[in-house]
Amino acid sequence: MQGNNLLERFKQGDRRALARLLSMVENRDVTIPDLIDTLYPNTGKAWRLGFTGPPGAGKSTLVNQLVKAYRKVEKKVGVIAFDPTSPFTGGALLGDRVRMEQITLDPEVFIRSMATRGSMGGLAVGVDEACDLMDAFGKDRVLIETVGVGQSELEVAHSADTTIVVLVPQSGDAIQAMKAGLMEIGDIFVLNKSDRDGADRAYRELTSVLHMKEAVDGWYPPVIQTVAEQNKGVDELLDTIQDHYTHLTENGILEKRRQERIASKIRRLVEDSLQRRLWVGDREERRKSGLSGARSPYEVAQALLDNFYQEMNNGE
Amino acid sequence: MQGNNLLERFKQGDRRALARLLSMVENRDVTIPDLIDTLYPNTGKAWRLGFTGPPGAGKSTLVNQLVKAYRKVEKKVGVIAFDPTSPFTGGALLGDRVRMEQITLDPEVFIRSMATRGSMGGLAVGVDEACDLMDAFGKDRVLIETVGVGQSELEVAHSADTTIVVLVPQSGDAIQAMKAGLMEIGDIFVLNKSDRDGADRAYRELTSVLHMKEAVDGWYPPVIQTVAEQNKGVDELLDTIQDHYTHLTENGILEKRRQERIASKIRRLVEDSLQRRLWVGDREERRKSGLSGARSPYEVAQALLDNFYQEMNNGE
Repeated sequence: MQGNNLLERFKQGDRRALARLLSMVENRDVTIPDLIDTLYPNTGKAWRLGFTGPPGAGKSTLVNQLVKAYRKVEKKVGVIAFDPTSPFTGGALLGDRVRMEQITLDPEVFIRSMATRGSMGGLAVGVDEACDLMDAFGKDRVLIETVGVGQSELEVAHSADTTIVVLVPQSGDAIQAMKAGLMEIGDIFVLNKSDRDGADRAYRELTSVLHMKEAVDGWYPPVIQTVAEQNKGVDELLDTIQDHYTHLTENGILEKRRQERIASKIRRLVEDSLQRRLWVGDREERRKSGLSGARSPYEVAQALLDNFYQEMNNGE
Repeated sequence: MQGNNLLERFKQGDRRALARLLSMVENRDVTIPDLIDTLYPNTGKAWRLGFTGPPGAGKSTLVNQLVKAYRKVEKKVGVIAFDPTSPFTGGALLGDRVRMEQITLDPEVFIRSMATRGSMGGLAVGVDEACDLMDAFGKDRVLIETVGVGQSELEVAHSADTTIVVLVPQSGDAIQAMKAGLMEIGDIFVLNKSDRDGADRAYRELTSVLHMKEAVDGWYPPVIQTVAEQNKGVDELLDTIQDHYTHLTENGILEKRRQERIASKIRRLVEDSLQRRLWVGDREERRKSGLSGARSPYEVAQALLDNFYQEMNNGE
């Protein structure tokens, strides 16, 4: 499929063209930057919601309920799952798949699970670009689901306008989440499975931990109790998400955040490009061979920098 | 204090000079690269052991016991703690501090807790350089302790010759550790507090998870059960650490790993230097202001790259 042809079909709303472009993002196809560059003016309309939290917190079930709710008010929805254990991927239990069926058959819902990358830089670029594609395709909401272990959730939060941290009532979970940096990134906290024993205590624990936090951009993250499987608390969560959006837009924060996101992306793009030009041929060989008689890594680094600047000076 | 004077005192074994240099690493003093460059030929003798795992697993207690054991065989030991809750820092409970006293008063033991940085790159550079300093100071063993949440433990593992993952018997801990990437980095697994209920089950769980792993460089990570508070299992752990060292040296793996570590460090040094030159003045302003009328981040990135290459072409 030619790039132009693919773009034409994408612009006409062909879901297979969107799927193809997402695969190209996943495979780091070299033509992706040019293709998204062309589509970029069509982005900026979708509202990007990130969902993160420990495995088993019920993120997918919650996302599933939110998608249904958004469909009731005729919003077009995209879902990107970066969780390898997500029911949105093939690896899920049959019961989960059946529950998801209603939304997976809806032509205005596009669900995509994407592979996570080893390096965080790689994942982040993928998230941004997948969101850009969903956005340019005309989605009103893009829901990003990621499992909250390691660094990926922090990267996903960076791509989202609103980040929702999903936890379950379990002793020490709030403390663990705090240490893992989840407290820093959550705009809204959900305590799912709140029909469990100990839910009230967990709610108080979480609320008190959050009280120690300073407001970010004038927003104090609320805690919403849900039982996603029974669709309980989901309306309240939707209202809270809407409150956050109103807060972001009325105070110019959304624009500020989006500009910071673009600035980060520019940085990544420039540095990736420089690195590709830097670490080739002799320089890459010298780097890989380590000291090779030099006194220290500092000495080798200086020699390689000099070599690179020299090459630039000689006009490529 | 002048740099040369400081180096002289460092070389004469003045502990305050080491402390001062470690503070300079922590504060990213601009003269640190030159200073470590000078000391670098004196490194390569210390064996670097990384300890990571969830909060409360008893890493500090274990490190404390190992330091005592190494002192019995007259090894000089350095300890670097990157854990803000570590008893090696001021924040610990009195009981912990008393237990540590024996080693903290020993003149051949140097203990230092260091602040963790927000960004992972920053932390990693700090670990390497702190280890290099301890190494050049004449330590035979450098024990690095880090809390196993987020990305920092993966970075620390990168700086260590042998990485020891410390877990406690708690249902699901092995699974959680696996998801957090700890399974990938452990050369040796310690199941501490093995006098607790459920320790045998946790041992079987951990062992079976590890069985799914492929050997790395011909080494299958063993699981050692300890009760660090009672000094139980510590001798077995010491033997296993020695086995790993023998394995690394006899098969040329230590050299290979250290060369890879140097290559990574060269990469970081070169890229950091380029980035400092790249993101200044107008270019940094343009990056921060985002699109500013451009079509996409890709267009801005290309313009900034062109501008940088142009500057290089004009000879600085």
